Amino acid sequence: MDEIRYTPIGVVRSPFLPDHYSTGRRIEPKDTVSTIEVFPEYMDGLRDIEGFSHIVLLCHLHLTREYALVVQPRSDTVTHGVFATRSPRRPNPISLSVVRLNEVDGNFLHVADLDLVDGTPVLDIKPYFPATPDDEQVRTGWMQARRQQEQ
Amino acid sequence: MDEIRYTPIGVVRSPFLPDHYSTGRRIEPKDTVSTIEVFPEYMDGLRDIEGFSHIVLLCHLHLTREYALVVQPRSDTVTHGVFATRSPRRPNPISLSVVRLNEVDGNFLHVADLDLVDGTPVLDIKPYFPATPDDEQVRTGWMQARRQQEQ
Repeated sequence: MDEIRYTPIGVVRSPFLPDHYSTGRRIEPKDTVSTIEVFPEYMDGLRDIEGFSHIVLLCHLHLTREYALVVQPRSDTVTHGVFATRSPRRPNPISLSVVRLNEVDGNFLHVADLDLVDGTPVLDIKPYFPATPDDEQVRTGWMQARRQQEQ
Repeated sequence: MDEIRYTPIGVVRSPFLPDHYSTGRRIEPKDTVSTIEVFPEYMDGLRDIEGFSHIVLLCHLHLTREYALVVQPRSDTVTHGVFATRSPRRPNPISLSVVRLNEVDGNFLHVADLDLVDGTPVLDIKPYFPATPDDEQVRTGWMQARRQQEQ
């Protein structure tokens, strides 16, 4: 199947430097503020986004060097298929983040609690709305089992 | 900024033919079943995914010919910036779907209520878990206003 090509529409400006990531430290995004710089040529696409309290960011995890089909998440002691985890070591390293939109200032979006390093390319921004499934019917496999063990 | 290249990890098999899409009819996914065919070389990445009741699919909307920064969604009578909508006419046409995972059969995932046409390339599969924000604190801008008008 054909290769797919994308061009970043913006970039993450965050307090997490690439060095932080490469030393293997875990990013703790709580109470941090990041800025999404949308490139000026895409600014018209942001119209009315300020009405949303949360947005979805799809970013390219540009520091991922190679993927693995089986990974051990930091939150578990055993391995799982990469598609059953949020590991960055995916065949197509796209991250999905739901973040609070604090303020829109021209082509800059100020957001809370994002866990991406400074310089991460942004592929897409979408309005967030709660997913269809009633949260009480959601099963989260190994994540659930892991959480129950910890309690 | 550099171009980003991805290779599909699978393909959507659905009852919606590309012709359906090109004639401008709206896809009504309710009560339909689609299958995600994960290419055999990525099958090991699916291990433990059957424990999740819902999964997130990121797909490449391959029928999108050109993007627009300002669009009028079918669900509204006025225009909005494309990043404040889920329109497919995005600079990087990546779709985000949360779907129910009915069954895993080898490298085939049977899912419910997906609104993508047959042949859509799949970029990534992630486990779904409820997003951090408490749904009651979510504001959904023009979508909310539109819904209130309809009531």
